[in-house]
Amino acid sequence: MGEFDLIQRYFTRPTPRAVLGVGDDCALLQPAPGMQLAISSDMLVEGRHFLSTVDPAALGHKALAVNLSDLAACGAQPRAFTLALALPRADAAWLAPFSQGLLALADLHGCELVGGDTTQGPLNICITVFGEVPPGQALLRSGAQVGDDLYVSGTLGDARLALEVFRGTQSLPEAAFVQARARLERPTPRVALGLALRGVATAAADVSDGLLGDLGHILRASHVAAVVDTSVAMQLIATCAHPSYANGLFDAEKQLAYVLAGGDDYELVFTAPPMARAAVQAASAAAHTPVTRIGQIEAPRTTAAVRLVDADGAPVQRQFAGFDHFA
Amino acid sequence: MGEFDLIQRYFTRPTPRAVLGVGDDCALLQPAPGMQLAISSDMLVEGRHFLSTVDPAALGHKALAVNLSDLAACGAQPRAFTLALALPRADAAWLAPFSQGLLALADLHGCELVGGDTTQGPLNICITVFGEVPPGQALLRSGAQVGDDLYVSGTLGDARLALEVFRGTQSLPEAAFVQARARLERPTPRVALGLALRGVATAAADVSDGLLGDLGHILRASHVAAVVDTSVAMQLIATCAHPSYANGLFDAEKQLAYVLAGGDDYELVFTAPPMARAAVQAASAAAHTPVTRIGQIEAPRTTAAVRLVDADGAPVQRQFAGFDHFA
Repeated sequence: MGEFDLIQRYFTRPTPRAVLGVGDDCALLQPAPGMQLAISSDMLVEGRHFLSTVDPAALGHKALAVNLSDLAACGAQPRAFTLALALPRADAAWLAPFSQGLLALADLHGCELVGGDTTQGPLNICITVFGEVPPGQALLRSGAQVGDDLYVSGTLGDARLALEVFRGTQSLPEAAFVQARARLERPTPRVALGLALRGVATAAADVSDGLLGDLGHILRASHVAAVVDTSVAMQLIATCAHPSYANGLFDAEKQLAYVLAGGDDYELVFTAPPMARAAVQAASAAAHTPVTRIGQIEAPRTTAAVRLVDADGAPVQRQFAGFDHFA
Repeated sequence: MGEFDLIQRYFTRPTPRAVLGVGDDCALLQPAPGMQLAISSDMLVEGRHFLSTVDPAALGHKALAVNLSDLAACGAQPRAFTLALALPRADAAWLAPFSQGLLALADLHGCELVGGDTTQGPLNICITVFGEVPPGQALLRSGAQVGDDLYVSGTLGDARLALEVFRGTQSLPEAAFVQARARLERPTPRVALGLALRGVATAAADVSDGLLGDLGHILRASHVAAVVDTSVAMQLIATCAHPSYANGLFDAEKQLAYVLAGGDDYELVFTAPPMARAAVQAASAAAHTPVTRIGQIEAPRTTAAVRLVDADGAPVQRQFAGFDHFA
């Protein structure tokens, strides 16, 4: 199978909205009048972002999901994406499920594959995604205000827990592992929530490198600090609520670490003023996505930007690092 | 040096035209009213698209140049790009010249780096580029008409010749090699010519995989065939005209092969009706880019889509393959 056959067979699909899709030097899109274009690129590398044993369909899903998650964090409506793919070899047994997982998620969000590139090389998946957002309505990292509530969507820490099971540092009952593994391998980008939070949230980011790391981006961009209630946050790991989970399979320290600094969650962390609590709940309901208030934005300070407290407001002394690819 | 330091130090630049540049979940662009967006992605892999010994500044230049070449082939005005980069390690001695070479070419074309991704992994450079073109004016592969003249810009085959010197299958005088090597390592995207050919050319593609291969894309998309005068085409290799070049350093067979199927040329192959010859020459002059008429578009046939002839119109029997990453 040659390069052009490969593109034709697995990655050429009707693109009813694009002016011109796969197969010319460029794709052509006609942006909706007046809308701003939100653009994000993510590159996934074997061994770094996924295990070599991962199901190709799940990998196709995840490669697009992590990009859609960036659009969600901006409150942008997905429109189109490009796929650049380096493959050790053109293998139909891999390409068929990979493209199927990728395009199923694309269809779910009406996000058209309009172009890209394929080449021989160590497995590398680079997706660039395009969304639309009305001018002035994008959710930025820089809008958090002192006194704002701090929220996170969905659940946190399950993906990291599944990764630790793969690494052999944790064990789980099979049914609980299946659930945690799905969070690692098939994350759900919170696109509907991002759209519903336009005009409600003051700042947002997606949680890809761990809650504290990505919250840190908001705090730096907004020149503020935050307090996080660890007693609320640590309950956000869904695996602990799984019926097969016997309490105490892993300790509270690890539980908190996975929630606050686990990575690969693809939830949204966002801020909104206390007067918007009803609006946040309405957005959550409209998007069928639970959100949890985990803290508050505070005035900037010279010490650590995030203050961890327990249920009584007493300081929790813990250090977590956000994931850094070169640290 | 961590991931965020790396991005801050080497890849964060003012983006006066973008609404929002590097540093949030997405970049935000405001498309010019009514314009279509031309999008292209290219991925460069070490050992496949460049040698490990290449000068990082040249590599930065080339990584963007091959993407701008796709915009040129569409007649689109470059506006912005994203860069996703997998690196074995964060090495300032490599990153500084790489980013300098990349951004110097970006500045030359007013093309802003608005976002991207960095990760640890085998060296891989994935750029997605965005350009603007008025609706209906994009140069497509599908517009060639029977009777159209067939043109190519600039010179062909020098990049392949330089590659063969690196591979040890050819030798050249030093001065001629320097010139050929510059064509391999620092290709010039024909952006100005692409813009000048709007409304003049009926079809265009960029020559990245070899003239015959990329001409083949036009012929398939346009459902036509072509004749190419090899006596004209084979003079397009600049190295043969170099003062240090002693005629006969490589044979005529190889010369023709490098020109017709060398690859890495980043010239434009395009078609225009004979009545547009003056307009083509005016576009060439306006863009300061020579163009050469090398053949003509013919009616489709069941045999090979490209017919090679000599100066007398007699058939030239040669087989060349376009480059295929998985063939």
